[in-house]
Amino acid sequence: MAIANQETILESLKNGLREDQISINETVKELHGQDESYHQMELPDIVVFPETTEQVSAIMKISTQYQVPVVPFGLGSSLEGHVIPQRGGITIDFSLMNKVLRVFEEDFLVTVQPGVTRTQLNKELKKYGLFFTVDPGADATLGGMAATNASGTTSVKYGVMRDQVRDLEVVTADGTVIHTGNKAAKSSSGLHLNGLFVGSEGTLGCFTEMTLRVYGIPEFITAARASFATVKDAVEAVVSILQAGIPIARVELVDEQSMKQVNKYNDTAYKEMPTLFLEFHGNEAGLQQDVAFMQEIVQGHACEEVAFETDTAARNRLWEARHTLAYAYIHGHPGKKMMVTDVCLPISELAGAVGHARENLMALDLPGGIVGHVGDGNFHALIMMDMNDPEEISKAQEFNERIVVYALERGGTCTGEHGVGIGKQKYQQQEHGAALAVMEKIKAALDPDNLLNPGKNIKVEKREPIQ
Amino acid sequence: MAIANQETILESLKNGLREDQISINETVKELHGQDESYHQMELPDIVVFPETTEQVSAIMKISTQYQVPVVPFGLGSSLEGHVIPQRGGITIDFSLMNKVLRVFEEDFLVTVQPGVTRTQLNKELKKYGLFFTVDPGADATLGGMAATNASGTTSVKYGVMRDQVRDLEVVTADGTVIHTGNKAAKSSSGLHLNGLFVGSEGTLGCFTEMTLRVYGIPEFITAARASFATVKDAVEAVVSILQAGIPIARVELVDEQSMKQVNKYNDTAYKEMPTLFLEFHGNEAGLQQDVAFMQEIVQGHACEEVAFETDTAARNRLWEARHTLAYAYIHGHPGKKMMVTDVCLPISELAGAVGHARENLMALDLPGGIVGHVGDGNFHALIMMDMNDPEEISKAQEFNERIVVYALERGGTCTGEHGVGIGKQKYQQQEHGAALAVMEKIKAALDPDNLLNPGKNIKVEKREPIQ
Repeated sequence: MAIANQETILESLKNGLREDQISINETVKELHGQDESYHQMELPDIVVFPETTEQVSAIMKISTQYQVPVVPFGLGSSLEGHVIPQRGGITIDFSLMNKVLRVFEEDFLVTVQPGVTRTQLNKELKKYGLFFTVDPGADATLGGMAATNASGTTSVKYGVMRDQVRDLEVVTADGTVIHTGNKAAKSSSGLHLNGLFVGSEGTLGCFTEMTLRVYGIPEFITAARASFATVKDAVEAVVSILQAGIPIARVELVDEQSMKQVNKYNDTAYKEMPTLFLEFHGNEAGLQQDVAFMQEIVQGHACEEVAFETDTAARNRLWEARHTLAYAYIHGHPGKKMMVTDVCLPISELAGAVGHARENLMALDLPGGIVGHVGDGNFHALIMMDMNDPEEISKAQEFNERIVVYALERGGTCTGEHGVGIGKQKYQQQEHGAALAVMEKIKAALDPDNLLNPGKNIKVEKREPIQ
Repeated sequence: MAIANQETILESLKNGLREDQISINETVKELHGQDESYHQMELPDIVVFPETTEQVSAIMKISTQYQVPVVPFGLGSSLEGHVIPQRGGITIDFSLMNKVLRVFEEDFLVTVQPGVTRTQLNKELKKYGLFFTVDPGADATLGGMAATNASGTTSVKYGVMRDQVRDLEVVTADGTVIHTGNKAAKSSSGLHLNGLFVGSEGTLGCFTEMTLRVYGIPEFITAARASFATVKDAVEAVVSILQAGIPIARVELVDEQSMKQVNKYNDTAYKEMPTLFLEFHGNEAGLQQDVAFMQEIVQGHACEEVAFETDTAARNRLWEARHTLAYAYIHGHPGKKMMVTDVCLPISELAGAVGHARENLMALDLPGGIVGHVGDGNFHALIMMDMNDPEEISKAQEFNERIVVYALERGGTCTGEHGVGIGKQKYQQQEHGAALAVMEKIKAALDPDNLLNPGKNIKVEKREPIQ
């Protein structure tokens, strides 16, 4: 959708930004019209690359003045179309705001700009013996990860993105700069804006600085792979481990089909059976006791083999294999697009949900597999589909819906970590009921003209902007 | 402040409530006109005791219809005047909604009504080998604890109240019943209402049901008391323990003056020196290694003695002594009222802040001491003052202000766990800056008539209700 007054807006932008920070180049626009999802590309009218909070504030003021939508953009690794500018407008690319500003070693905190990626941050933190825990598959930007409340393999121990955010500098719709928190470990002061802005998917403001919690690299780490006869056995083993109170740092399920993709893509020779990838963090003595207890438990659940990876290289290879799984599927099916389900359920419902997903996946007759952060009750079914084949798309959509409805009927959520974006909007009413109206009131209060990433997360139907 | 149409309101209330659920008795009103703070008593016009969500919804509709304020009330253990109905109106006492509704053993969740107290919940959970972690000094209701985002001695390991809330059933200003979350361990769906409502101090709605996270009772627990020459040594020891990555479950500082109160009130004979009360949770082997490392660290910080409490009875006595400290001060100073500061700072600023508080406390010449959840950077200075002596009150207020300003200037918060209530309002602008306007917009969007606990937390000056 073309904006009416592009020339005027470009002139206004030039007051606050250099010419090389503003682009209307078609290739640049195309790069900012899509993410890693199957959702349809839509182009922004203008892409800007601010370097400072002041510049972001100037852009937001122009957005309000000319009633033109703004979409924040990290690296475009979102999985539900979050960054696709469905109504055109200005895309704010944060790639030039990519500095680790300060490490507060004693406080286990770090302040970063939103364009910093998680591997970039971890490289810097390593110098201090620290690490950042949240690890979605992609090397996403921290701004994007906060916008979707991302999580990953370590959430079972360290929590999700929301748990790591102590403070956000946010530019709100009218260009005001606010701080949502502080550097203290806890606070009962005012309303909790940190938690509200995390996961708001660019619909309440743009993040320009973030203070995040970091952890000391654990004294000892042991990783293990455990192979099971069936997915059900594997999931039940996880439930037993959690119930035994063993503090696992990571526990990932990879099904048989996905293990095949892993081996093919990474040139590994792991057993091609339903597998748990596990990791334990702690001191040496405690860890030995935990691991021994864990082995006892998995053996009670038809575990066929447990292999330990004690040295760092083997451990990194194992997690690399897990993290590149989505790419392994994409790489293995050229020309196809990936759809990923993302439900999260109470742990007592997980075995049933994974079983239900397996049955439906087998009946679907599309290439795909199941993986999951099973310690959180979160799993993904990955399906490869041909975007030129309406029947495949429709089959995949129906499959996704069945998975979601199953989860919602059992106290779960339609998205554990990917966010709502475009793809999960249709489930918001069923999931939130009357609470959806409360969310809409908050959105309307903070973005009265509906210009901040409009149409994502909280969709406001009745307030289209004047153009 | 008397409400204009009390008779009409009483008649309306009788449509949804039994007569014995409605009171205008003076003694009942007095009991609901105060909390445990030094703030001035104000009486509600009517006190109601609902038993169901539907009844709460009916009360809220009456509040809107007649534009009369409502104040939710748990047990009145708040420390900043949260439950004092400064504008009169209806106080909703939740003491009849005090049932533990369901324990979800496999999911480590429990659903309770808001009037359940923490000890009541723990008594029930013990049957399942589970416990609820958050333990403020008072045996508060869980509804009240969620309303103030309470925490306590175990937050350093298990997090604060906000971290435990998976779902709240909330009755909003217009009587609508919403759910703010679900039973899944994580979610990226919609806006994060759980976190927003926790800590909102009754200003956004009334909680009628809560689903909370619980934990398995640890396999092994060891508690310790470590005595130090100075408060500074004790605080620095804590910082070193945290930096060493030792996963302490509790670490409380009690200064010399407060140890004297403890001994007097509990008939104990603990050393009357600055003391750390510590606790470690884990498996036996890991715990031994952690404790040995901890001992090494404290000895590097002029620790004069470490005493371990391994059996359950001695450990309970120790924590009982810590928990009754506020009462020990009150009991020891009949006729006086307690003021408690509650700042929380980045851990690197804690030793300085406690030192600053000590100096100011010594200069104050009022009875008092310092205690704190030092693992979180949160400490309290307790001062006893004579409410008939304006000079004492004014000195105590000035002291409180100095402590708060010191914290705010160093990235901290004016309240780590007690909440804003009446007492911390004057610091909200300095602490939150431009973010305060965002909080006010949210309050206005969800409570347009400013009837929900008006004047607390987010004070909306310009929207006095029509009466």
